[in-house]
Amino acid sequence: MCGIVAYVGHREACPIIIKGLKRLEYRGYDSAGIALMNGDLNVYKKKGKVADLEAFISDKDVHGNIGMGHTRWATHGEPNDVNAHPHYSSSRNIAIIHNGIIENYAALKTLLISKGHTFQSETDSEVFINLIEDIRINNNCTLVEAVRLALHEVVGAYAIVVLSKDDPNQLVAARKGSPLVLGIGKGEYFLASDATPIIEYTNEVVYLKDYELAVIKDGELDIRSKEDIKQTPYIQHLELTLDSIEKGGYEHFMLKEIFEQPRSIMDSMRGRMIVESNHLMMGGIREFENKFANAERILIVACGTSWHAGLVAEYLIEDFARIPVEVEYASEFRYRNPIVRERDIVIAISQSGETADTLAAIELAKSKGATIFGICNVVGSSIARATDAGAYTHAGPEIGVASTKAFTAQVTVLTLISMIIGSKRGTLETSKLHQLMAELENIPAKVEQALALDEQIKRIAAQYQDATNFIYLGRGYNYPVALEGALKLKEISYIHAEGYPAAEMKHGPIALIDEQMPVVVIATKDSSYEKIVSNIQEVRARKGKVIAVVTEGDTTIPTMADHVIEVPETSEHLAPLLSVIPLQLLSYHIAVMRGCNVDQPRNLAKSVTVE
Amino acid sequence: MCGIVAYVGHREACPIIIKGLKRLEYRGYDSAGIALMNGDLNVYKKKGKVADLEAFISDKDVHGNIGMGHTRWATHGEPNDVNAHPHYSSSRNIAIIHNGIIENYAALKTLLISKGHTFQSETDSEVFINLIEDIRINNNCTLVEAVRLALHEVVGAYAIVVLSKDDPNQLVAARKGSPLVLGIGKGEYFLASDATPIIEYTNEVVYLKDYELAVIKDGELDIRSKEDIKQTPYIQHLELTLDSIEKGGYEHFMLKEIFEQPRSIMDSMRGRMIVESNHLMMGGIREFENKFANAERILIVACGTSWHAGLVAEYLIEDFARIPVEVEYASEFRYRNPIVRERDIVIAISQSGETADTLAAIELAKSKGATIFGICNVVGSSIARATDAGAYTHAGPEIGVASTKAFTAQVTVLTLISMIIGSKRGTLETSKLHQLMAELENIPAKVEQALALDEQIKRIAAQYQDATNFIYLGRGYNYPVALEGALKLKEISYIHAEGYPAAEMKHGPIALIDEQMPVVVIATKDSSYEKIVSNIQEVRARKGKVIAVVTEGDTTIPTMADHVIEVPETSEHLAPLLSVIPLQLLSYHIAVMRGCNVDQPRNLAKSVTVE
Repeated sequence: MCGIVAYVGHREACPIIIKGLKRLEYRGYDSAGIALMNGDLNVYKKKGKVADLEAFISDKDVHGNIGMGHTRWATHGEPNDVNAHPHYSSSRNIAIIHNGIIENYAALKTLLISKGHTFQSETDSEVFINLIEDIRINNNCTLVEAVRLALHEVVGAYAIVVLSKDDPNQLVAARKGSPLVLGIGKGEYFLASDATPIIEYTNEVVYLKDYELAVIKDGELDIRSKEDIKQTPYIQHLELTLDSIEKGGYEHFMLKEIFEQPRSIMDSMRGRMIVESNHLMMGGIREFENKFANAERILIVACGTSWHAGLVAEYLIEDFARIPVEVEYASEFRYRNPIVRERDIVIAISQSGETADTLAAIELAKSKGATIFGICNVVGSSIARATDAGAYTHAGPEIGVASTKAFTAQVTVLTLISMIIGSKRGTLETSKLHQLMAELENIPAKVEQALALDEQIKRIAAQYQDATNFIYLGRGYNYPVALEGALKLKEISYIHAEGYPAAEMKHGPIALIDEQMPVVVIATKDSSYEKIVSNIQEVRARKGKVIAVVTEGDTTIPTMADHVIEVPETSEHLAPLLSVIPLQLLSYHIAVMRGCNVDQPRNLAKSVTVE
Repeated sequence: MCGIVAYVGHREACPIIIKGLKRLEYRGYDSAGIALMNGDLNVYKKKGKVADLEAFISDKDVHGNIGMGHTRWATHGEPNDVNAHPHYSSSRNIAIIHNGIIENYAALKTLLISKGHTFQSETDSEVFINLIEDIRINNNCTLVEAVRLALHEVVGAYAIVVLSKDDPNQLVAARKGSPLVLGIGKGEYFLASDATPIIEYTNEVVYLKDYELAVIKDGELDIRSKEDIKQTPYIQHLELTLDSIEKGGYEHFMLKEIFEQPRSIMDSMRGRMIVESNHLMMGGIREFENKFANAERILIVACGTSWHAGLVAEYLIEDFARIPVEVEYASEFRYRNPIVRERDIVIAISQSGETADTLAAIELAKSKGATIFGICNVVGSSIARATDAGAYTHAGPEIGVASTKAFTAQVTVLTLISMIIGSKRGTLETSKLHQLMAELENIPAKVEQALALDEQIKRIAAQYQDATNFIYLGRGYNYPVALEGALKLKEISYIHAEGYPAAEMKHGPIALIDEQMPVVVIATKDSSYEKIVSNIQEVRARKGKVIAVVTEGDTTIPTMADHVIEVPETSEHLAPLLSVIPLQLLSYHIAVMRGCNVDQPRNLAKSVTVE
């Protein structure tokens, strides 16, 4: 995690860095700090948000045309002033900002202490900068050379920028595993974890590659490979607009993003499905259609909410295309010698396209010869660049840490893909396909109807805002929705919520149910409707409070449940796109009522770029 | 769920029924009741345990040589006196005990009300008995004929016994989906959900088949098929002994069963592995070895704790035999048109062998032509009888509702199976196989060492007995152990505990972590050790309390964790058999300290014989 920004050029560096850090706060907000070169190498840092740092430096001299800043998501050492970045070396001659984790930091630290280095913080990053200093002194070499040699010693992931008192016009940057974008302006350069701090000033960017080392000195850019061979930078022109990353009148980004879903789902289908002409096509998949159709097995790797979208896809693909699907946590997949064969296809799902575990899983699957298909939201992200083919979800930037519109966009794209493969394989009848297409086209309007339940859901939220626990139950297509609903509540309200396939409740979780326990049951009309009605009875028999999400017009469940939320009728294959909406709203309102920071929940960060 | 007992013969029925119900309390203990024929048809029933019923009838006239009793696990209607079984018909001329769920009860109830029947309870069972009465009156037929016709009208699962005032020497019984055993004594007959209420009196039993109707009248037994064709009963001789179902000096069955694990794991290996002669063989698998070795895919279906054993098996089989494995919740599998092909093998895991969803999943997989392999603990159980082949776990009867020794026995048997397949396929090197066998043989002694930690774990339990939440983390082979540890705590202490693959913590659950949150991390030395050390750092950075299960001699984690529990070193493939032991003990002690009923936790039942 963590966000980093650096600047060198003709303007004042500090305001550019502070503004950039605010854009990157979705990557972490435990502490923030800035280093500026103005005569001396000055570091200012503070526990808390970027705004706290801003207040802290308001009476300091922060002039200067070169500097770097960091917003932190704590991995080693708790969030406090000392552990905040930038970190000086022992001599205070050089300083570093670092995003990533150095795994062998403990051994390196022991070694450096024995050589006389001293440490202020508990971070792995401070070990990194002292290692660089130690090499520079011992080898009597340049800073750039010392950084290059240090990169050979560290194990782990990093994006770093290093400043030195002795080279006041120089930025040294490198990356492996963590993202780093370089912006090229007129006589000025920017470095950042993503392009948002940069686009205000320039559209010309270079995505640094793993193991590349970039040096900006006296207005000149020099990029070198691991082997110290000069690289010609591949400059890309970005289309990102500024207003797409603002709040637009809503109280929180999350609420804005929930209400954007009719449009974001539509955007995810746009150009890919035209119902009138029975046209169904996806650019990213076209040349891989045969591979998909002949796949022996499809493996889906993802984390968190994307993993839930993967579970929905498992049901869809197995139903429509009759190809066995296995959904894996990316973190588990990569460490267990998984079975991946050449005729297998691996689908990697990630909103940010930067999820470290998912990226590593992709590399592993690649090394075993599988075809890798990526589904991500951020254009030009690491996963988009690491895969053989893929499809963007086109949900637009998602800033709220708890994912909402990215989830429904992922499910939409995965629905299209499973329909395409099913149709290609002949396992999905044409008449059924056309029926599904027509129904899918209606989804944005039905999501709009579901969003109109906002006031009703707010009233329900008011009744349960003080609950300490929640259980979410669903069957079939609604089982992943139960998991996702629980995760949303957990993330932003800090209420311990847990999702379960409804029938599993009896194998343990039912012991938790008493009159204190709200149980959200997703019970829309589908093939397991009768079964889930029985599960509601079982919850009621233990006096649990039942909040049921049902299909419009249901007359049975309203006689049993404490609260009933009606969503429009749709095909059971598309149910997750509708039934998840009230659960997003429920979590949102409960979190707001509890006074939680909805867009930046504690301990979390938007994209998990460490393992 | 629910347990049923009935008796007709020359002895007093009541003491036999009460004693039998106590043996069946593992099947549910929400309420209990008894019906006796002595002049009139008398019903006595009470919310609570069988002991409460016993107190209630102490001043009643309970003489008589024919009767039936029921101990309930509530499905329709909360646990109270009225919803307790037996249930009279409206006229009070006939009465029923029922185990199972009638799915179309609502429609039938509406119909019967329109015909003048009245209802006292909210149960589906009372609908059943009134349906029988309605048919008897309308068709002017015998009770037996009315029951037979009623069975054609009900949808769902049942084991029933019916008594009638007009036929004072007759028991009518039937089953579909729920178990029913008939014991044959000298001039006396027994009916029960399993053999434990019967074995004290006779070893000769008949397992009733689905759709069979048994009538015992005037000392004669008559079993009929669905089509009313007389069946010749297949009488089996049981070997079960009485002392195997007693507590043996421990305070609770659960503790007894935890401490039995060195022996039960040994019993699960006995005769299957002889290390000196490198002999590895499993009766149940022998004739299926080729099928296993050539399997395209292995599907594992299970629920609850058995599902966790299935997850361990996924890692083992993929590691050793390189065959793709998919682990499914039985309840999800059966309702989603799963892909099952003829070269697939389905492994069904269930302690009781009666789990309704697992049984139904087996039937579905069978219908698709797959080979079904069962792993269960109860000899002669429905699953054992429904599968093509299988292996018993030989853990001995498990009475505590929270499964402990059955889990380790399942894992042991699954380890043996994956070693056999891996060896057969040549994917597991002989030298590694022999190493694993030697290591597996040492496991019972190492489990003994882990059990010696009991006092230390008790001290830790004392510190966290008032916690409201727990998180359990593990990676790789220890990920299913984290799930299982959380489930144990949830089941018996009613603390909301949740297990997660450690890396997923950052995708949401970490928001729950503050200084109140105990986090159990299973961090034994294995290939992902360094990664889980990072996860411990992340928890500490948020001030969570870390209880770590580590390998003996670990020097790193003790510097970080609040509590360290050391288990003996072993191969990472066998780690779950050791690392789960402290988690079982931790849950046990916390539950005891909270004053919970460890062996019979609220809302739960031992084997989940409804969906």
